[in-house]
Amino acid sequence: MDVLTLNCGSSSVKYQLYRWSEKRILAKGIVERVTIGGSFIKHEVPGRDSVKIQSECPTHKEAIELILKTLTDPEIGVISDVKEVKAVGHRVVHGGEKFNKSVLVTDEALKTFEELQDLAPLHNPPNIMGIRAAMSILPDVPHVAVMDTAWHQTMPEHAFIYALPREWYEKYHIRRYGFHGTSFLYVAKRTAVLLGKNPFETNVVIAHLGNGASIDAVKNGISVDTSMGFTPLEGLVMGTRAGDHDAAIDLYMMERLGLSTKEMNDVLNKKSGVFGITNGKYTDRRDVEVAADEGDHLAQLAIAIETYRLKKYISSYMGVLGRVDAIVFTAGVGEMGPIFREKALDGLENFGVVIDKRKNNISLTRNAETDITGDGSKIKVFVIPTDEELVMTEDTVAIMEGRYDVHTNFTYSFQSPHYKNLLREENFAKEVEKKPELAEIKAKIPGVDF
Amino acid sequence: MDVLTLNCGSSSVKYQLYRWSEKRILAKGIVERVTIGGSFIKHEVPGRDSVKIQSECPTHKEAIELILKTLTDPEIGVISDVKEVKAVGHRVVHGGEKFNKSVLVTDEALKTFEELQDLAPLHNPPNIMGIRAAMSILPDVPHVAVMDTAWHQTMPEHAFIYALPREWYEKYHIRRYGFHGTSFLYVAKRTAVLLGKNPFETNVVIAHLGNGASIDAVKNGISVDTSMGFTPLEGLVMGTRAGDHDAAIDLYMMERLGLSTKEMNDVLNKKSGVFGITNGKYTDRRDVEVAADEGDHLAQLAIAIETYRLKKYISSYMGVLGRVDAIVFTAGVGEMGPIFREKALDGLENFGVVIDKRKNNISLTRNAETDITGDGSKIKVFVIPTDEELVMTEDTVAIMEGRYDVHTNFTYSFQSPHYKNLLREENFAKEVEKKPELAEIKAKIPGVDF
Repeated sequence: MDVLTLNCGSSSVKYQLYRWSEKRILAKGIVERVTIGGSFIKHEVPGRDSVKIQSECPTHKEAIELILKTLTDPEIGVISDVKEVKAVGHRVVHGGEKFNKSVLVTDEALKTFEELQDLAPLHNPPNIMGIRAAMSILPDVPHVAVMDTAWHQTMPEHAFIYALPREWYEKYHIRRYGFHGTSFLYVAKRTAVLLGKNPFETNVVIAHLGNGASIDAVKNGISVDTSMGFTPLEGLVMGTRAGDHDAAIDLYMMERLGLSTKEMNDVLNKKSGVFGITNGKYTDRRDVEVAADEGDHLAQLAIAIETYRLKKYISSYMGVLGRVDAIVFTAGVGEMGPIFREKALDGLENFGVVIDKRKNNISLTRNAETDITGDGSKIKVFVIPTDEELVMTEDTVAIMEGRYDVHTNFTYSFQSPHYKNLLREENFAKEVEKKPELAEIKAKIPGVDF
Repeated sequence: MDVLTLNCGSSSVKYQLYRWSEKRILAKGIVERVTIGGSFIKHEVPGRDSVKIQSECPTHKEAIELILKTLTDPEIGVISDVKEVKAVGHRVVHGGEKFNKSVLVTDEALKTFEELQDLAPLHNPPNIMGIRAAMSILPDVPHVAVMDTAWHQTMPEHAFIYALPREWYEKYHIRRYGFHGTSFLYVAKRTAVLLGKNPFETNVVIAHLGNGASIDAVKNGISVDTSMGFTPLEGLVMGTRAGDHDAAIDLYMMERLGLSTKEMNDVLNKKSGVFGITNGKYTDRRDVEVAADEGDHLAQLAIAIETYRLKKYISSYMGVLGRVDAIVFTAGVGEMGPIFREKALDGLENFGVVIDKRKNNISLTRNAETDITGDGSKIKVFVIPTDEELVMTEDTVAIMEGRYDVHTNFTYSFQSPHYKNLLREENFAKEVEKKPELAEIKAKIPGVDF
């Protein structure tokens, strides 16, 4: 059974085709510049060179058609007929308080997503457009919605209610929702595997650090707090998002500069974060690192602020959890930014956190789980490449097969100590050929690796 | 030498008259409803019943005149002539980046405070009115300004710069300033005394919990981070202030409800916090405690949220400090709210924090420093009644005498292990008569108490 997963943004569609029976990725890629002109698809098939093809996509429908055309292309495709796609899993950013797990897309579910557009005006509308477009092109297969917020629905009231007028919660649904849930679910389950523990007895702090970044406190296997809130603006310093700051600043600056709410929202989401600190010079943390090394003070400051605030969140969630089994880094910066990991944990030795700086510097791979724990650390420190697409695929398959349930009552394939991501293992083997010390830091799985 | 300290709010003036030579309070009190009609003075003299007198004060000038009239009144007064007031210390909320210590009020200093009105539009204007009024009534004595922000000017850049457009800092002075500095200074120095340590080798987390609330990370005796930010809105949950929340909520609700920036500022500062959580029922934590005991769910939620977020800040600052000598509670709720202290530290045992619950419950006094540390705790937990007026008085005296400097180069009288607040000691003796177990938890001073 082949499952297509789609992640529709305002001007892009990411996709992956997965052959469930063989547990392998057939192809993945992205259509960029959807709706804005100059669209193209970047298509990747394991073992082949990637391909880029220009093709105009005025709407998400053309983008999904382009994906299916590419997947079935006699030369660059991987399947002979669209009929081999047996189900589609869709990422939906905001599921509100209604959904605590993935669902089959029905008219009722679509209606709910539309009602939630108000809460996620940037994210849900393209998600919904994508679902509608895919359903019109593939009307005979089940479509499943996988929500970023679902994982966090286990948060207790004292973590999700703000100290704001009660009516705002009751009437306008103002509360902490949290995002990146699909990633946190995957990483939390994998952490339990690496610890050889029951996930529901595992306490872990997970930092998902990409261009967007958030952090999750997982207690006995469920999310109890997270840094993103009503929207993805809150929490950590991100590429262009401000994260936490005194809200009175916004009101003050709106008056000083005569900005509308929409303009201020744009500044906070698109002109702040690392971009703001560096006076508009950088958003990509790799560029920031290079500039910092070259002595750029604002780049150094951006790293200092981002990692300091990360450390504060990690410490804070350690307090929330009381007992912590592991601290885990994931996503782009989490997987590929040793300097960010080191600085974020620097000074936490008294609280049982020690990393091995050498191992941390070696850990630069998106293809293996690595263990960067230092000698004498009471708390394990892992780097775990996330795999949101796999969660989406498995939810979709399980819903089709009628055996899906909320994650506390469902066991994912990747919760087996014997689970392997074959493509990553292949890629990792190539990395090890070039950099043998990588093999040494690969995280051991109790009962499997000796 | 008698020193008058004044704290002018928008509609109130608090005062204290202190006889420096005898190290004792002659009188203290408050004029309420200044500028809004129905003004009255509440005047307290140690050892006498307190007095309340109606007298209209259309401006702060009449309020200060009323204070001086009361202080020199043959019956209820404490001095025979206004000339006995040798200096006046004024609280000024916002000193911007210009002042890292108290200063003699000169034309230039006044001009700077006026320039800073923009940054603290609610607080600085009445502070300045009070200074001008007091200077016109007492033109021949030195007036000194003591700023809430001065103590925090030691914060490093990565703690005070927000991830907002760089220009906002450079051009509009948007940064974290922090408040309650006078209180934190007093408590940090006293903590070092209770530990028998050099203050500049002491690491402490101080929670100043009143109707307004903030928390301070003190490393080697200086402030390195604090929860209030550009304004007092940021940070902990307060009586009516929201503290930390997703800033996108404000913009969203401004659109939904058609609110102006001023109206939203009012909601966040005056209708949120405990008041907001409890749907407008409570702001005073004593009322919240009673209601929670009686089963009011929103009151229980308010306590849960406030203490949960306090725990997150305490843990976060423990991470910032790396090594923590003591956690200290001060101000109204900090001194008189055992349930808040207990819940804020619950679950931090793994990080070396254990309180003695019985001692914590006994500790209900504003007249003595108490030690509520539990057995096996690596970190001391104290309750220290704050004394901002004493800091203001001493700064004023030292400036007059030409021996004042920034706190890193100045030793306060209360840094002596032999320092005593006589009035508090008397009051505490009376408390102990009624509740003998209080004596048992009084904090010991190394080298003094045996």
